[in-house]
Amino acid sequence: MTPVAIDDPADPRLAPYAAMRERDLVGRQGRFIVEGEVTLRLMASQRARFRTESVLLAPERWPGLADVLDALDAPVYLAGKTVMSAVAGFPIHRGVLAVGLTGDAPEPAALVPPPPAPALVLGLAGLTNHDNVGACFRNAAAFGADAVLLDAASCDPLYRKAIRVSAGAALITPFGRLPAGADWLAIAEALALEPLALSPSGHETLDAAPPPARALLLLGTEGPGLPAGLMARARTLRIAMAPGFDSLNVATAGALALHRLAGATGRLAPSLASSPAPSPAAGPDRRGEC
Amino acid sequence: MTPVAIDDPADPRLAPYAAMRERDLVGRQGRFIVEGEVTLRLMASQRARFRTESVLLAPERWPGLADVLDALDAPVYLAGKTVMSAVAGFPIHRGVLAVGLTGDAPEPAALVPPPPAPALVLGLAGLTNHDNVGACFRNAAAFGADAVLLDAASCDPLYRKAIRVSAGAALITPFGRLPAGADWLAIAEALALEPLALSPSGHETLDAAPPPARALLLLGTEGPGLPAGLMARARTLRIAMAPGFDSLNVATAGALALHRLAGATGRLAPSLASSPAPSPAAGPDRRGEC
Repeated sequence: MTPVAIDDPADPRLAPYAAMRERDLVGRQGRFIVEGEVTLRLMASQRARFRTESVLLAPERWPGLADVLDALDAPVYLAGKTVMSAVAGFPIHRGVLAVGLTGDAPEPAALVPPPPAPALVLGLAGLTNHDNVGACFRNAAAFGADAVLLDAASCDPLYRKAIRVSAGAALITPFGRLPAGADWLAIAEALALEPLALSPSGHETLDAAPPPARALLLLGTEGPGLPAGLMARARTLRIAMAPGFDSLNVATAGALALHRLAGATGRLAPSLASSPAPSPAAGPDRRGEC
Repeated sequence: MTPVAIDDPADPRLAPYAAMRERDLVGRQGRFIVEGEVTLRLMASQRARFRTESVLLAPERWPGLADVLDALDAPVYLAGKTVMSAVAGFPIHRGVLAVGLTGDAPEPAALVPPPPAPALVLGLAGLTNHDNVGACFRNAAAFGADAVLLDAASCDPLYRKAIRVSAGAALITPFGRLPAGADWLAIAEALALEPLALSPSGHETLDAAPPPARALLLLGTEGPGLPAGLMARARTLRIAMAPGFDSLNVATAGALALHRLAGATGRLAPSLASSPAPSPAAGPDRRGEC
């Protein structure tokens, strides 16, 4: 794909990149923004679940990414960081942006391996914080969950900040949305998954509970937690903590449970991974923040 | 303590609350800011490691906090949220602020139980992100670590955002600073702790490694990780992950390791905690962020 240089911030081909923060708030009608090299490389990989509509690079970033761009089959625009920043409405330090297309949302049933295969599905109930949703996706990918299901109240995993916090996991981990008012336990039954509600008031400790081969791990928002009606009808787990400070971030608690469930069902690599970890924290604009 | 109403933002008694964000950047010379009811209650508890210099409340918050204020033995100033916001330089929604005094930094040796008692100490090497430092403290408290040690490059746990992300754990978990250039392994030896370096390239998986009774768990920053020289000389652990996405947030990885080490050394409550989890996410200004 031969890149096209653009130096007019008002060029209509750059419209999907315009006023980025304002657009975050009102939604993008089927599009989302990808930032940085790590996530662009994931979009270009076989594992990406979404098509890339276009790529916008600072010219100096192009040579190092040429291999990636060939795989993307999308137009590549080159614009200096000053133009990129003028379009976006704030400084674009890394000079790597892309627009993805959400496509049609899959049905939850299409994402979960049918029985009797093992299955590990993460269910997010009322997670209204983008950092937490992004972190849950990162953990789901790290521990090999098959899919993430989100209720209608939870944040969009393709929101810019959620993708970033997920280290790109939101682009490769299958996820689906439940309609408003959907009943998690009915969904678990329909998918032949055992619902496990994780809560500080759970009845079994995580380590004591025998992990099921097909699990739907349910996380609720910090503070209010999972609805009482759900807790009353599900198998409930808690994480053993020190006396006097039983407070964990919801994504961290989820990571502990996913690690346990994934380990018990043989999802974790026994040997060292060969590739270094993709990490948004390694980017030049996330260092030295003290 | 009878509260004192103040309606002049320039009143010198409010000076420690002035220009809060700018002051975050340049430091506070022995003071730090506490925000919100959960953290103020921790400051008033027996577990707080720091003295409170003063409290600044919106008048409507005073009745609900009167019990806490009696325990604090510090002057209480009342000012409307408009005045509070004018002093701080940004909107103060919750109307609950306090200034703490850092006091003298303790020596690391004073924070670690002497042998042969079990000990669990978290070591943060080059953690230059306040969210990660705060999250590490929250996890250290949740899993009953005795202390946190930070190298000279790591962020200040009493930075405003770090306290908030820690859910107040930075106010109650003993911590100490190492001088620049300090050698973690020499410190571990001096304190009779076994150093465990957590890294994606660690030689033993967390679950396979027999946990020592006295551990110094070392976390490095995401991306660069722990220094190669340290990794070569320490016992190294990794967390088993799914093939193809070996990427975990550093605080999340630390939580998994702390949970394992704490569980093996009997630090975790076998039964349900009686009190609900303190959670900054439950505050009114952290909800509905989608």
